Amino acid sequence: MERSSLERDRAGLVMVKGEPFNAESPLAGLREPVTPTPLHYVRSNFPLPDHDGTLAVGGAVARPLTLTLDDLRALPAATLTVTLECAGNGRVGLMPLPTGEPWTGNAVATARWTGAPLHLVLERAAPLASGIEVTFEGADHGPYRGGADIHFVRSLPLERARDPEAQILLAYEMNDEPLTPDHGAPLRLLVPGWYGMASVKWLARIAVLPEPYEGQFQTKSYIYEWPDGGREPVGAMRVKAAITDPAPGATLPAGPYTVRGRAWSGTGPVAAVEVSVDGAGEWQPARLDPPSGPYGWQAWSFDWAAGGVGRHVLRARAIDAAGNVQPDSPPWNRLGYGNNAVQVLVLDVR
Amino acid sequence: MERSSLERDRAGLVMVKGEPFNAESPLAGLREPVTPTPLHYVRSNFPLPDHDGTLAVGGAVARPLTLTLDDLRALPAATLTVTLECAGNGRVGLMPLPTGEPWTGNAVATARWTGAPLHLVLERAAPLASGIEVTFEGADHGPYRGGADIHFVRSLPLERARDPEAQILLAYEMNDEPLTPDHGAPLRLLVPGWYGMASVKWLARIAVLPEPYEGQFQTKSYIYEWPDGGREPVGAMRVKAAITDPAPGATLPAGPYTVRGRAWSGTGPVAAVEVSVDGAGEWQPARLDPPSGPYGWQAWSFDWAAGGVGRHVLRARAIDAAGNVQPDSPPWNRLGYGNNAVQVLVLDVR
Repeated sequence: MERSSLERDRAGLVMVKGEPFNAESPLAGLREPVTPTPLHYVRSNFPLPDHDGTLAVGGAVARPLTLTLDDLRALPAATLTVTLECAGNGRVGLMPLPTGEPWTGNAVATARWTGAPLHLVLERAAPLASGIEVTFEGADHGPYRGGADIHFVRSLPLERARDPEAQILLAYEMNDEPLTPDHGAPLRLLVPGWYGMASVKWLARIAVLPEPYEGQFQTKSYIYEWPDGGREPVGAMRVKAAITDPAPGATLPAGPYTVRGRAWSGTGPVAAVEVSVDGAGEWQPARLDPPSGPYGWQAWSFDWAAGGVGRHVLRARAIDAAGNVQPDSPPWNRLGYGNNAVQVLVLDVR
Repeated sequence: MERSSLERDRAGLVMVKGEPFNAESPLAGLREPVTPTPLHYVRSNFPLPDHDGTLAVGGAVARPLTLTLDDLRALPAATLTVTLECAGNGRVGLMPLPTGEPWTGNAVATARWTGAPLHLVLERAAPLASGIEVTFEGADHGPYRGGADIHFVRSLPLERARDPEAQILLAYEMNDEPLTPDHGAPLRLLVPGWYGMASVKWLARIAVLPEPYEGQFQTKSYIYEWPDGGREPVGAMRVKAAITDPAPGATLPAGPYTVRGRAWSGTGPVAAVEVSVDGAGEWQPARLDPPSGPYGWQAWSFDWAAGGVGRHVLRARAIDAAGNVQPDSPPWNRLGYGNNAVQVLVLDVR
């Protein structure tokens, strides 16, 4: 019963690993303004856990809490359309190839997430003045690379976690339905604008800490380790455009064709998308649809006159309001995060 | 009649441009020790030319010659198995994308070429002491990028052209049949070990020059223009390994699998091929079959234990006897030549 339900949830995805389950969105999942849940990519570090349905809030707080799902649902609900991308999306484009899940380019999707604002819950718990950081612990755990059994835990600065404007959710609904097992049922954190690792699934415990958190997934994984020795935590999603139509390797009839795609950025609103045809060097502006909100991807389109019969190459790049532009080459880093290099689409006109 | 014969010649190829005709080998063309002619990639700079069946040899020579095909066939014939690769093969892997034909990775093939040794013909023409370079002119021509009508002409140093050990052929047979139109009928130059641009098709005129040749395809095209401003002519094929089995994106059953491929180098015999699985960093040795000769690719294979269900990434790299190793990242240059970066193959185990 549980098994067949899981299989149904997963049947539409492009599997990357069977256990723990990791899978990319199919291209169809990027073609919808809001990705249907069965087409939303899944990233898991550990096997599907049991979750007792409660959320503990403790640590350096005046009022430790244990909240049920009903307690959270009783709070004012917020709904946000949020694009999530795996930090390792596009890892196979990095050379030499880092270890880690070999995501190509579709570990990205957009959903409507509904939940209780995190800041309301934190205020109820009343962090002590000594608190500076907040950890979020998933119920998921396992031996890590053959070592000790650890849980998936991420942290945020307390200041950010309690900031209403950060719009961080304790999400219990995805696309207007309760969360599915692969997306963190019954409860997950949802940190808009950041790569997916921040949005802790199967959320079980929140703890306020008087010192920085230094666990595996905060200070060892999800770190940009640059070739020059620099280290930076992975955070906001880098600006990126995806071409959703035509599909890679498509064969098109001769004549005009409207190229379509999505663009998103965690470092500012998308300001422009540009398209380049056949490496001619010129970037031409694409049409950018209005944003559906501050955290969801934007649709774009480009009327391509189409070239002669044969192979053609399309590239698209996004630029955000902070002036970030996608690079031509991937920014290589040892663990393979944040590859937002321009996508190169090869197709044929017949 | 001519038309339908051409269409038959081309039906098995992966077209990159319709006119002039440019097409990659299908993967099946790389899986044979000798690529069947209809599966051998085709690179053309101009439309298919008329050719009067003669070869003129002139310039700084004591005895200008006009040779018929029969004259050439009357000379002692040589047959060589030669791997030819287009200098622009893999161009779409370079970022930013250079202009030029968007070859992915299969503008490479191997054929048995039969012809008259170039040095015998040159000696008959008796180059003058002032001669230092030799041009090879194809009958193919056309307006170049909207400018003047020019022929495809390449040159070699006279010393190299007349060196019997360079084994350069005036080839009139490919795989034991007369040349087909797309491969230079009735006669082409064949420069073993060099990228394909040196092997001038539809060869019509040879001229010995007392000075360096500075035509379009010798000093403007087919030049490595490096980001640091350096310029070098494109010459010998860089060491490279291709994975021919499994195919990119293949779905494999769980269990052991023998990975197969080809390796070649114009800068020395292939000394080793190594395989890396899932980005783990370790390169493991592949089995290398004995060479079929000095200029043909070598088969290699690797027994892969295969991983768990899900996506896997295979890479293969070749190393030649001169110590050249394939780079992880493509050596970017403005015109997009000589990309011999390690191939990354993504596949699924189900």
